[in-house]
Amino acid sequence: MIACIGAGVIGGGWAAFFLAHGYDVVAWDPAPHAEARLRRTVEAARPALNALGFPDAAWGGLRMARSLPDAVRDAEFVQESAPEDLALKRSLLADLAAATGPDTIVASSTSGFPMTEMATAAEDPSRLVVGHPFNPPYLIPLVEVVGGAATDPGVVAAAAAFYRGLGKSVIAMDREVPGFVANRLQEALWREALHMVAHGDATVDQIDAAITDGPGLRWPVHGPCLTFHLAGGEGGMAHMLDHFGPSLLAPWTRLDAPELTPALRDAMVDGTAAEAGGRDFAALVAERDRAVIAVRQAVEEARRD
Amino acid sequence: MIACIGAGVIGGGWAAFFLAHGYDVVAWDPAPHAEARLRRTVEAARPALNALGFPDAAWGGLRMARSLPDAVRDAEFVQESAPEDLALKRSLLADLAAATGPDTIVASSTSGFPMTEMATAAEDPSRLVVGHPFNPPYLIPLVEVVGGAATDPGVVAAAAAFYRGLGKSVIAMDREVPGFVANRLQEALWREALHMVAHGDATVDQIDAAITDGPGLRWPVHGPCLTFHLAGGEGGMAHMLDHFGPSLLAPWTRLDAPELTPALRDAMVDGTAAEAGGRDFAALVAERDRAVIAVRQAVEEARRD
Repeated sequence: MIACIGAGVIGGGWAAFFLAHGYDVVAWDPAPHAEARLRRTVEAARPALNALGFPDAAWGGLRMARSLPDAVRDAEFVQESAPEDLALKRSLLADLAAATGPDTIVASSTSGFPMTEMATAAEDPSRLVVGHPFNPPYLIPLVEVVGGAATDPGVVAAAAAFYRGLGKSVIAMDREVPGFVANRLQEALWREALHMVAHGDATVDQIDAAITDGPGLRWPVHGPCLTFHLAGGEGGMAHMLDHFGPSLLAPWTRLDAPELTPALRDAMVDGTAAEAGGRDFAALVAERDRAVIAVRQAVEEARRD
Repeated sequence: MIACIGAGVIGGGWAAFFLAHGYDVVAWDPAPHAEARLRRTVEAARPALNALGFPDAAWGGLRMARSLPDAVRDAEFVQESAPEDLALKRSLLADLAAATGPDTIVASSTSGFPMTEMATAAEDPSRLVVGHPFNPPYLIPLVEVVGGAATDPGVVAAAAAFYRGLGKSVIAMDREVPGFVANRLQEALWREALHMVAHGDATVDQIDAAITDGPGLRWPVHGPCLTFHLAGGEGGMAHMLDHFGPSLLAPWTRLDAPELTPALRDAMVDGTAAEAGGRDFAALVAERDRAVIAVRQAVEEARRD
């Protein structure tokens, strides 16, 4: 049984995900009408999970708990998805650590607070870990896992293994960085977008079209590094950095770039080469093209339905 | 006939795109082996264009010109895709303006130089306009169109109409901003990624996985604004900004956020509402879910092939 603490958009999405994987879920949320909202969220997620191959027959059962201790008493794993409020998280995680047994992992869906800052009120913070999903948790595979200073490293490894066992794509970080990886990248883009709207440089619909009809079509198949590896043509990331490196000094965003030191250049070139594995330029181009065509067609169909 | 000036990755991609749409293309590129490289690029693009419904039988013919004047003499439209070097662009665009007739539009693929800066050497800069594609130009629909201070507004409108007539998704900007829209957003994300690698916060493959398995799966269907509209649940962008607004002050990226003034908040809320049109929360969720499932399946297939 898995306990979902907080049953809003994220907590409800997690509940649907765990239910589809056959787990019983006990949820707790002190907000008014929380149960009705949770059941709406789960039902809205059901067609998507059915389409991904999780038939209703295999689903677990969903129960709303009357209290926090009631919710977590028999939980083998706790997923906390309370509002993004540091004081609230501190108090809630302390209560969860106290109310759970010594083998129960308590994972927080926080979008960016380091666990070291959230765990300050817990008597035993060793089982507290960040397990940060992306909305909706039942569809987006990414989960970022990172512990705080007092988290048992075995708990970090066990949480990563738990999520991986459910088919999640896990980034296990060994260092706490506010916003983790994906939200830092996404937040940089978002802040630039807000600056552009604030300054009248672009409208909301231009910003969204710039992504959906532009680089957003490549990102499901190749991340930003592999994308720029291809932008370098047959010379790859090395050519790209040597050719476009000077544009890092251009006023293309309000974010200053780091100095392109030889060490950074080599880290990018070597990391991208490792990621490309044996795939040469032609193979990567063919893969990207197949994916972009299929993605375009998939999105057109989804918009039409 | 369309002239492609510069026949590297971008110029070659444009050539394939125009050929597939039935245009004859004359290319010019002074680099050694330019013709062999161009023909390789066009052939690599052919399966993708075939799959998008452009059969070989309808393709135009491809010829390599011996000189710049020879290339553009009979061109109805010129697409310049030379290396990203301001001095080179200035001289080349001046030559192109001089060698073309009074009805020929000369569009530059520049990734970020404003036309006002590139047109300084042209005797008549009125037909020079930015037509910035995304790689590969034969697959990604986005083209950003913006003129310089001396560009005839009719030329900007005609270039936008020309691209739209070929099925492109055009953002026509009425103000020059370095990097335009999409590259500013992409560049902010890229610089944050470089900072993270430079500081050892994340590795190249973690950064790419964070996007491909995370927010990158949503971006082909909903851009960053509509994505955050959904992140606000049934309260939409207004709830999202009121709830997550404080996180704009968090150290989640090296880019400082703008102040969330009432005017900026309203611009985001109103712009997102307009973009959502009549679609309510449930309809947008269903659309996103259908798209993300289809995108995941499409990418898995493309990677397997």
